[in-house]
Amino acid sequence: MMTEPHIFQAFDRDLEAVQALIMKMGGMVEAAILDAAQALETRDEELAEQVRRNDAAIDALEERIQAEAARLIALRSPTATDLRTVLTVIKIAAALERCGDYAKNLAKRSVVLGQLAQVGDSTGSIRRMANAVELLLKDALDSYIHRDAQLAADVRQRDREVDQMYNALFREFLTHMMEDPRNITACMHLHFIAKNIERMGDHATSIAEQVIYLVTGNLPEEPRPKADMTASSIGMPAQGAD
Amino acid sequence: MMTEPHIFQAFDRDLEAVQALIMKMGGMVEAAILDAAQALETRDEELAEQVRRNDAAIDALEERIQAEAARLIALRSPTATDLRTVLTVIKIAAALERCGDYAKNLAKRSVVLGQLAQVGDSTGSIRRMANAVELLLKDALDSYIHRDAQLAADVRQRDREVDQMYNALFREFLTHMMEDPRNITACMHLHFIAKNIERMGDHATSIAEQVIYLVTGNLPEEPRPKADMTASSIGMPAQGAD
Repeated sequence: MMTEPHIFQAFDRDLEAVQALIMKMGGMVEAAILDAAQALETRDEELAEQVRRNDAAIDALEERIQAEAARLIALRSPTATDLRTVLTVIKIAAALERCGDYAKNLAKRSVVLGQLAQVGDSTGSIRRMANAVELLLKDALDSYIHRDAQLAADVRQRDREVDQMYNALFREFLTHMMEDPRNITACMHLHFIAKNIERMGDHATSIAEQVIYLVTGNLPEEPRPKADMTASSIGMPAQGAD
Repeated sequence: MMTEPHIFQAFDRDLEAVQALIMKMGGMVEAAILDAAQALETRDEELAEQVRRNDAAIDALEERIQAEAARLIALRSPTATDLRTVLTVIKIAAALERCGDYAKNLAKRSVVLGQLAQVGDSTGSIRRMANAVELLLKDALDSYIHRDAQLAADVRQRDREVDQMYNALFREFLTHMMEDPRNITACMHLHFIAKNIERMGDHATSIAEQVIYLVTGNLPEEPRPKADMTASSIGMPAQGAD
């Protein structure tokens, strides 16, 4: 936690307003993730439809945050840490918007999957993974609001567990597909869902890394721990940006 | 194409320097896409390894662009269109960095796929899709440099063709997996590759949309044409952010 005396009170007031919007957006995205995963597990088409509809409000909020942040820069001409803080807000908003899109996509696929036979307890595992990612995202945003580099470092570490959950699911889907070709279509959709949740975890991590940079002035030293191994071995899950 | 008289010559000079870096980064990302797709088709492990190695330079260039853009804002305090231009540069750099990551991932998977039996002529189709996306990206960057809203609108339309190429590939992979479970592992990797190339097209489109916003002050009116139908129908490919 870092508090610096400021000359420009107006900047702080404006920044707080934008930060309030970011927290609101975060709450909406977190709800979308949880609702979409629940809709998938309980085959609740109405809830899925609601998640899809709500995404427009998330997108609109991102645009508003981008506009307010640009206005803040234009009006207050912040420099140094202040400027970096505003640029971080812009990046966080973009990351949240992507997570909202992933949740919407999850909701869409859950409707499709509702028409297919269930594949093991995979939707339960996916919901647990979604819950873990929602917490990561929440903590990443808290670490930003409180400029808490320790919490941010913790988020970065915990994303590893999400990667491992994804790896386990990937192997499970592969097995189901090999066993019975009738599972292939469902598993392709389930795999996409799992991969997109894993990506949300990556976005939480990238928010955490921005916070570490903002607070300490340095990016984390060691390369980000990455437990997703699928891109580098046969029949195993995927690494980095996929 | 829009040229406005400026009071601040220093801003223009700085902006040009950042724009030169963006074009350099674009060239590197375009080369990575083409090389990765070629490595996949010709099973050229050395070329794939080279793409993987080169990604670090792309990442470093993004960081440099972000830093220069922040410095430009801090130093010159641009407002209105000038500020929007710099924020657009930041977004373009982020989009290019993602595309570079996708190319690296493609290269990684091409090495894995080199050890598996070939599945039809899918790597040829993927290379054609990669070529189309590389052109989209090139034109999106040109539309930015020349503030050419017409070319940007053209990019947006052509992304539809890339989506259709992806849809066709998705159906092809599904068929191969159903026919022979031994194709499943390879098809999972190929599908990821195709999806990631389709996503690069989305990034080109989002650059184009930024340009349209920059030049006209408005985001495109009609929703972006989207020909990827897989998230909304059974056994069909994926929509939006996945």
